[in-house]
Amino acid sequence: MAEAFPSKRTNKRLVLTGYGGINKIKLQRKELSNVKNGHVLIKVEACSINNHDILARQGLNLSMTIRPPCVLGMEVAGTIDECGQGVSSFEVGDRVIGIAWSGGWSEYVSVALGWVFSMPNGMTFEEAAAIPISYLTAYFLLFEYGGLKEGKSILCHQAFDDVGLAVGQLCKTVPHVTLYGTCPHSWQSITRKHGYDYLVDSKSRDYVTDIRQFAPNGVDIVLDPYRGVDNRKNYFLTKRLGKHIMYGGANLRSAESRTWFGAARQWWNTFHQDLSTLITDCKMIGGVVLTHLVQDASGIDWVRTAMHDILKLYSEGVVRPRIDAMYPLEEFNIAMERIHSQRFIGKVILLPTRMPGRIEIIDPDLQQKEIPSSKFQQEDTRTSKEEELVKAKSREQSDESSGSDTKEICQTPTLSKVEGLFSGHETIVLDDN
Amino acid sequence: MAEAFPSKRTNKRLVLTGYGGINKIKLQRKELSNVKNGHVLIKVEACSINNHDILARQGLNLSMTIRPPCVLGMEVAGTIDECGQGVSSFEVGDRVIGIAWSGGWSEYVSVALGWVFSMPNGMTFEEAAAIPISYLTAYFLLFEYGGLKEGKSILCHQAFDDVGLAVGQLCKTVPHVTLYGTCPHSWQSITRKHGYDYLVDSKSRDYVTDIRQFAPNGVDIVLDPYRGVDNRKNYFLTKRLGKHIMYGGANLRSAESRTWFGAARQWWNTFHQDLSTLITDCKMIGGVVLTHLVQDASGIDWVRTAMHDILKLYSEGVVRPRIDAMYPLEEFNIAMERIHSQRFIGKVILLPTRMPGRIEIIDPDLQQKEIPSSKFQQEDTRTSKEEELVKAKSREQSDESSGSDTKEICQTPTLSKVEGLFSGHETIVLDDN
Repeated sequence: MAEAFPSKRTNKRLVLTGYGGINKIKLQRKELSNVKNGHVLIKVEACSINNHDILARQGLNLSMTIRPPCVLGMEVAGTIDECGQGVSSFEVGDRVIGIAWSGGWSEYVSVALGWVFSMPNGMTFEEAAAIPISYLTAYFLLFEYGGLKEGKSILCHQAFDDVGLAVGQLCKTVPHVTLYGTCPHSWQSITRKHGYDYLVDSKSRDYVTDIRQFAPNGVDIVLDPYRGVDNRKNYFLTKRLGKHIMYGGANLRSAESRTWFGAARQWWNTFHQDLSTLITDCKMIGGVVLTHLVQDASGIDWVRTAMHDILKLYSEGVVRPRIDAMYPLEEFNIAMERIHSQRFIGKVILLPTRMPGRIEIIDPDLQQKEIPSSKFQQEDTRTSKEEELVKAKSREQSDESSGSDTKEICQTPTLSKVEGLFSGHETIVLDDN
Repeated sequence: MAEAFPSKRTNKRLVLTGYGGINKIKLQRKELSNVKNGHVLIKVEACSINNHDILARQGLNLSMTIRPPCVLGMEVAGTIDECGQGVSSFEVGDRVIGIAWSGGWSEYVSVALGWVFSMPNGMTFEEAAAIPISYLTAYFLLFEYGGLKEGKSILCHQAFDDVGLAVGQLCKTVPHVTLYGTCPHSWQSITRKHGYDYLVDSKSRDYVTDIRQFAPNGVDIVLDPYRGVDNRKNYFLTKRLGKHIMYGGANLRSAESRTWFGAARQWWNTFHQDLSTLITDCKMIGGVVLTHLVQDASGIDWVRTAMHDILKLYSEGVVRPRIDAMYPLEEFNIAMERIHSQRFIGKVILLPTRMPGRIEIIDPDLQQKEIPSSKFQQEDTRTSKEEELVKAKSREQSDESSGSDTKEICQTPTLSKVEGLFSGHETIVLDDN
């Protein structure tokens, strides 16, 4: 489209049409607006799915600032397509990381200059799109809230997810840190490679007992992505002089769509802290939501300082985001189902410029050998069910007219279809253990 | 006494006979026990009055572990009088600081080896007795809980008290820190010398408004020694990414004896923190009670590491405890009333080896010129009312027999007497502004 009518370019986007399940997201086209002053238009090569997006789709975003219809997607990587007035630090064609906060699940997204960062040499677009939110979260958790210092111990739950692996890698920058994590048994060998010293299986056993065996007096910094009864457990696991830091809402994302009752129950179980007890326990408790943090007047400075450090660590080989799987924008439904199933290790990426109908699956072993990402396009690892979905989508797309201002390109397949797909799909992903 | 009967030495001590006002403390003598293994017996030259002692006397100590009859006094300085079995790192006559946690308001106190520290060269006994609790509290607040880093801002209430001045001095070790404090107007010029950049008068005005004028987005680290409605104010003043840290209970010490109702009201007003709000506010909240902190298995290591740093900073001239006033042990009542009146700047010290009947008043200007402390003994700055009290006490003492195992030496004067004394006494203290 963009090539056919350059004077009236359109933008392919994933639009959230209402709170709920995956079927609330529709692939649509809309005419591109002019770039605002102080913004750059990024042609998106890769964008990522974050926990925040999942919660926002479910209507569980903490501030309720996201109101459909809107486009989700917090972070992108791509090339600069156009510079708004007053932009002199970038040129068209520059490879950049953009923190869009929303609107990133698109072919093109406009990002304010303060949230745009040059990609270091050697970084792929999928790596670039996987870095900001996960590593900024880990960075603030560890270094700002946690005040991580030499010799401290840390517990990070969901060690296998994007933030968990980022925590593992960033902990390596401080000497003599002991890092505990919770992680299903079958993924522990992969997760351990990212910096974890001890991993316990939180699915089969009570992690409090297991962690207490390693650390009888508790842990200095407990990173707690849960809501509900786990908050009490994690407070209990926090040592005197220690910090219990809450973020995310990992246990809210497991179901595709949540009832308000279920969410309310989780929030109710998020305990109220009696401050007198906090004082006599000699602990700290806190929390962070990145989207709220950056609303501070200093937010942009905090993020730029942190990104500077994180990208430097990338250049030094310390920061290495693990891409779990990549999908064309059109197959967002499979990507999201992968996250709901809690069967991912690292980050799930969407590729707006790739041909629809191709499911990109990462083999982490190949990734570690630094095979260019184009390699993955040449491998057809789809199951027959995945092929079926792709064909069905192509049919839907060809049926659509393309003249209207906002256009739905493909309907989300029903959940049963996705589930069927997913069970076949899961076997394709190769473990690097 | 100790010299007269060396074979059966007695120990002059301030015994807390029950929870309540100053009159619950009695000066008594008791036979000295043998020194336990791994302990040293310190001949106390100076010991200090801490907020913890005041709250304990009132029955408001947070853990209720202090039960009368007992001897208060957390920290002492003096010379080693005797070493228990297994002590090889100290010799009789060594000048030491001892953290006794209790029992310090005595002529002699036995302290476990782990809590004994050599006094650096040039340190006076009164300085040594003024260091551990105040500076350890400030150290843990700033560096462990607060994670103080370059460029951060701090608010410390009661900037004039022992912890407040220690905070001011320790902040100087980190570049580009902005330190706000609350402090009555008339003491601001003295307090400012200890490292404060901005001071607001919390007595005459609402400090929230004043601090917000300096720091519209709030402060990175808020040190909150209050209980009650101030906790909410201080949480409000804490910036995003910031830390609100509670300690002490400074507003509980203002009355000589407290009703349980009053204390309960303060605790009730110590708000419960809704953790969901904490997360969306992106703040941390915590607290510390030093006596609880050190109960951790690592407690002694934390304290020894911190004391090592603090004593090094003393040798470098950074740590300089400000002695507000010194009194012989017998005049503890005047010393305590000085604290209840909230009219002190720095630390109030008791001197067990000084002749009873001499009120020692520090002139901070002289102190800053490093005049030896013996200088102060030669100055008689007592008012006629203070003279009266001293004479009354000497009469009481001469009436007492001294044969019994536990002996009350002098009765506490009534509060009205002390109040009368104090109003005269206050004029003696010279400001160094």
